[in-house]
Amino acid sequence: MTVTLEDIQAASARLAGHAVRTPLLESPALSERVGGRLLIKPETLQLVGAFKFRGAYNRLSQLSDDERRRGVVAFSSGNHAQGVALAARMLGVPAVIVMPTDAPAAKIAATRGYGAEVITYDRYTEDREAIARTIAAERGAITVPPYDDVHIIAGQGTLGLELVDQARTLGAELQMVATPVGGGGLVSGVAAAVKGLIPDARIWGAEPEGFDDIARSLATGTPQSNIPGARSICDSLQPPTLGKITFPMIEQLLAGVVAITDAEAAEAMRAAFIHLKLVVEPGGAAALAAILAGKISLAGKTGVVVLSGGNVDPALFARVLNGEL
Amino acid sequence: MTVTLEDIQAASARLAGHAVRTPLLESPALSERVGGRLLIKPETLQLVGAFKFRGAYNRLSQLSDDERRRGVVAFSSGNHAQGVALAARMLGVPAVIVMPTDAPAAKIAATRGYGAEVITYDRYTEDREAIARTIAAERGAITVPPYDDVHIIAGQGTLGLELVDQARTLGAELQMVATPVGGGGLVSGVAAAVKGLIPDARIWGAEPEGFDDIARSLATGTPQSNIPGARSICDSLQPPTLGKITFPMIEQLLAGVVAITDAEAAEAMRAAFIHLKLVVEPGGAAALAAILAGKISLAGKTGVVVLSGGNVDPALFARVLNGEL
Repeated sequence: MTVTLEDIQAASARLAGHAVRTPLLESPALSERVGGRLLIKPETLQLVGAFKFRGAYNRLSQLSDDERRRGVVAFSSGNHAQGVALAARMLGVPAVIVMPTDAPAAKIAATRGYGAEVITYDRYTEDREAIARTIAAERGAITVPPYDDVHIIAGQGTLGLELVDQARTLGAELQMVATPVGGGGLVSGVAAAVKGLIPDARIWGAEPEGFDDIARSLATGTPQSNIPGARSICDSLQPPTLGKITFPMIEQLLAGVVAITDAEAAEAMRAAFIHLKLVVEPGGAAALAAILAGKISLAGKTGVVVLSGGNVDPALFARVLNGEL
Repeated sequence: MTVTLEDIQAASARLAGHAVRTPLLESPALSERVGGRLLIKPETLQLVGAFKFRGAYNRLSQLSDDERRRGVVAFSSGNHAQGVALAARMLGVPAVIVMPTDAPAAKIAATRGYGAEVITYDRYTEDREAIARTIAAERGAITVPPYDDVHIIAGQGTLGLELVDQARTLGAELQMVATPVGGGGLVSGVAAAVKGLIPDARIWGAEPEGFDDIARSLATGTPQSNIPGARSICDSLQPPTLGKITFPMIEQLLAGVVAITDAEAAEAMRAAFIHLKLVVEPGGAAALAAILAGKISLAGKTGVVVLSGGNVDPALFARVLNGEL
């Protein structure tokens, strides 16, 4: 199973008039710092403050009438939860969301605010997929996985179509795109879209250290797991397993995936604050972090970095601004 | 002297391809909170992080070759300084900027970063206009005033043209626009643009308490000054005198100007952080503050609020997020 450019174009038609066409920004200061032309795709400005709305809406808008009545269930550390909750409300579908107890309070509150029923679990001892499966079985609800689903991937890929079109409008010849990587739904969808239109473009991903199962799987050629007991401030990039659909797409389409530290994520958040006036959450800043740290080089090139989300608790953001992280 | 719709359209043609066409965003959460349809024009995403680039570029791009060689001088608490400095660099014009010693460090550093020479003065004891006049006389430089100039006002008005066009694209029938007010260059330019296209639209301004000379002048019908010794976190909205061009335009075109407190500005900054994922400086949030505080009503209406700038020191922003302001 894979996702094609045509799948993504069809998703784009479904999302038209529902999702935000986020702008493509340019930062002279950051471009100067990295020695290339750095364009910014701020999905922080998307509905629910993250790209996740795209995939969720693409999936839910294809439910049958019977499925809509039965409702949906999703498991998520936060942004997918909000995406599913809002898409469900827009489409009149009941939604149950399984979220870790230590998810950012802002994300749990926002998910409830969109009218979803939230059930919490312990991220380190309980199996969220099993909990979601039980709810699905009891209620007959449709499970909406966070990334390993062709409709979800196609929905996320729509932002790749947009950024190619927007770069052309700016007269920029796009050579690379970098996105944060959790389960890989975003990066594989964007890669399918961008390389479908610009085959020579190089697509990069960035993961948090300790949760860099994809980077290590690519490096070793065999499937790797996240480091047991790992911790990261990038709460949105901690999926427990490699995607059966996303990982093969990443293997086939990406130039590489790199790992970034908490300190690098915090530095990228500060750079986005100062130079872009954008609020970016730690995981949402992972690709920018990799570029600013020199782990992905933009020297002499034109590229787009995706800021994938901005749902961060004020207290954590204040600590980052004060240099405490 | 006044500024017409045609002046603003001519400015818009000069700015095309140089200034950012900032997006028009929509916040369902904030719309729900105010009981109307609230659209957001984030000039925080403009070059230099504030609308000021528009007026500065419009003014400087009309200098003669001889004037360009002699250079420009400007006085500003920060955003106009950066706007003039960047426009000057883009046009190859030397620039001297007179800034208060207590301007946000980020603004002084950014102004120097754009290649301008910065001279500081004491905001409470020295006369910035006199300092600028002396420099202009000594060097033969052209003074670029921060607001009381038809080319500056026309440049700022270009964002009014944009937001009307963007609201139409969204299918929104615009009934009101609210902007922060310092010297009034922004609000008078926006009013001339918006009312030139939608005569029934009501334009509102918001000033900080203590620096609400315009609100009190409108209320009393006679020119008023700012309150001596007043302090406000809205560093960008503290001009010392009423504009000879802007005040009559405000009298003629505006529905009203209201005063907001520091606490209301801070609350609006937090709301922009949470719901819009945007970094807004205190003065830049003044109009949103007035709407959220109910001082400007959007109930049952469709309106645009301009977030005029995002140049705020990280430490101050952290204090706002922590509820210390």
